Amino acid sequence: MSTEEQKESPEAAAPAPREVKCVVLTGFGGPKMVRCQKKPEPSAKEGEIGDRVIGFCDYKAWSEVVAIPSQFVYKMPENMSFQDGAALPMSYLTAYILLFDIANLRQGQSIGDRVIGFCDYKAWSEVVAIPSQFVYKMPENMSFQDGAALPMSYLTAYILLFDIANLRQGQSVFTHSVGGGVGIAVTQLCHMMEDVKLFGTASYQKHEAVKANVDHLFDHVVDYPQEVRKLSPEGVDIFLDCLCGEDANKGISLLKPMGKYILYGSSSIVTGETKSFFSFAKSWWQVDKISPIKLYDENKTIAGFQLRHLLHKQGQHQYVKEIMNKLIKLYSDGKIRPCIDSAWAFEDVGEAMQKMQDRKNIGKIILDPTLEPKPKPVSPARTHTTSQCSEDKENTEDQQ
Amino acid sequence: MSTEEQKESPEAAAPAPREVKCVVLTGFGGPKMVRCQKKPEPSAKEGEIGDRVIGFCDYKAWSEVVAIPSQFVYKMPENMSFQDGAALPMSYLTAYILLFDIANLRQGQSIGDRVIGFCDYKAWSEVVAIPSQFVYKMPENMSFQDGAALPMSYLTAYILLFDIANLRQGQSVFTHSVGGGVGIAVTQLCHMMEDVKLFGTASYQKHEAVKANVDHLFDHVVDYPQEVRKLSPEGVDIFLDCLCGEDANKGISLLKPMGKYILYGSSSIVTGETKSFFSFAKSWWQVDKISPIKLYDENKTIAGFQLRHLLHKQGQHQYVKEIMNKLIKLYSDGKIRPCIDSAWAFEDVGEAMQKMQDRKNIGKIILDPTLEPKPKPVSPARTHTTSQCSEDKENTEDQQ
Repeated sequence: MSTEEQKESPEAAAPAPREVKCVVLTGFGGPKMVRCQKKPEPSAKEGEIGDRVIGFCDYKAWSEVVAIPSQFVYKMPENMSFQDGAALPMSYLTAYILLFDIANLRQGQSIGDRVIGFCDYKAWSEVVAIPSQFVYKMPENMSFQDGAALPMSYLTAYILLFDIANLRQGQSVFTHSVGGGVGIAVTQLCHMMEDVKLFGTASYQKHEAVKANVDHLFDHVVDYPQEVRKLSPEGVDIFLDCLCGEDANKGISLLKPMGKYILYGSSSIVTGETKSFFSFAKSWWQVDKISPIKLYDENKTIAGFQLRHLLHKQGQHQYVKEIMNKLIKLYSDGKIRPCIDSAWAFEDVGEAMQKMQDRKNIGKIILDPTLEPKPKPVSPARTHTTSQCSEDKENTEDQQ
Repeated sequence: MSTEEQKESPEAAAPAPREVKCVVLTGFGGPKMVRCQKKPEPSAKEGEIGDRVIGFCDYKAWSEVVAIPSQFVYKMPENMSFQDGAALPMSYLTAYILLFDIANLRQGQSIGDRVIGFCDYKAWSEVVAIPSQFVYKMPENMSFQDGAALPMSYLTAYILLFDIANLRQGQSVFTHSVGGGVGIAVTQLCHMMEDVKLFGTASYQKHEAVKANVDHLFDHVVDYPQEVRKLSPEGVDIFLDCLCGEDANKGISLLKPMGKYILYGSSSIVTGETKSFFSFAKSWWQVDKISPIKLYDENKTIAGFQLRHLLHKQGQHQYVKEIMNKLIKLYSDGKIRPCIDSAWAFEDVGEAMQKMQDRKNIGKIILDPTLEPKPKPVSPARTHTTSQCSEDKENTEDQQ
């Protein structure tokens, strides 16, 4: 615990604050080890311009903060306060940013544009750098929170349905986690097509909220393959699996001829704080390996999709850009509408993550650094899941 | 040998001939065991109408003849000679037929329509029955031989490219056997799209004939993955594999991110008369089984496609019908044009098959029962690959 600490008086006269709030995983043990801390603001590297940078990343980013990975840095203009300029609401997977690029403005972008972007890791911070090819201008009518909630879920859903599965009119689609970000995006995109039948699972307590989105809704714990077969003996045309493990085999066996199974996540591996390692190993072994010859005999397709790899390991930003532009158009036309479960201050990140891990959210959870933390009890228990943003920099190990 | 045989004098006064020519595999041993024989004309089953029926099927059909598999039978009108009515040119995979259905006329069909159809096995005969849902009217401008060559190759190519792989402008496609029926169809369909780059393999002796169809052509025996990587270091978007075996692994590893590998045949298993069993077993073991989790990590899709299963085991005739209608339209519009290598009399089936097995054909090989057999040497060697159509019915075992 120790650190109730030496509030470093911010040197008010300095040209700009040199610390930013960020979310850090301080040790092994799940959400309760996640802390909001202040860290030195990321500084530009050789060849870079800015001193104040801005961005976001995916939910595996909690191990350190903003070791800027790329040569792209966006500087804030002089007349903008740090807090205004770097307002970076984020979800666990996405964020929106204000664009302040003095060196790398791209066609159609201006200083001060409101933008959406993607970065790899190290994004749960008020300020991060982001490569300019991963930045998209937000439409006028998009709120910041919608901007944070939209990209990852809808990109994933769009690519699953319209590139990999090649959804056609009259087909049937099965999707898990109908109440999740991708699940909601899948249902909205399917409803844009004529005569698509939707099957899905969600925890029973979410059924009331999401049942209108699908034709047939099941609790995940029931024998859903059997229930689907009762309604559609042949199976389904498209099976979207974000769970992995034994659900992969169930999904593949539930395909119609010409059916397509796509694995795009592994939620079943994240089952809780202590079970995760074993559930990971179990999940790996539960998934049958498949010979292409079997697919040939059965006229089936299996596919995998992972947006993070696509963007940050495989350099497919041009492909992603084309789809992002379509999604931004769909949003502007009112055809899709992100569903936001709740927005949280950085200081309340633990609580937010716990809600996600307990699968109590319907739609996206947003981390918003502009929000004030919730009032806390006077003497919080040591193991409670959130902490006020402490202002120590590097001595967080003491807190364990 | 024995049978130099008792030419059964066809009873000229009978209302219609009760025998039809068909191609029969008379024993184990490849093309030289294939014979043209006369068999009793297939008769209609209970619930059926006709006595003279008509159709075709795929190349595994040589073991018996026309044990009519379905409740659909088409009867010839009185005023039509048997030979005229039942003119059924066939390729090893396809055939065209004249439609004589008195009971099951479907919307848009009339007695005497020239049609294309699909049946399962038992089709290398002048006359077979064919389920009416597998019958498509030929357009006016389609020759019988085109009608025989078109369906299987173009259906396969269309489904591979536009359903499973979801080909987009700007993508790259690799296909084996550029000189084969499906290979030619793939190149023609790709050329309908803007800016698609084509890679392919063909035996060296075919290069001159097919090199104009693709951007980059290799002999299959060279290290083609390496050659492709020289030209396109990232790999290809779509890999179509009709070979199986070790080519499956090569194809999957040659995929770009978001790439799609499709196995739609196993030609490498058919390498010769004696090697086929071992090459089958070898091929099976050579193909790596794949975990969906690996596909998830690599953003890849693998798929299998087999038209025969789709039509005759999985009942997807409605799906096939939609695509056949598109293909017939494309043919009528002059956008696709089947490539026919050669047409053969039933009596010369052995020679035709040998050519196919030796991979000397460019395009489809057609079996056409209206053709006269080639003149034979006066004293043919006993093991030569063809035989005059013998007129014994069931005693073919004697010939071995």
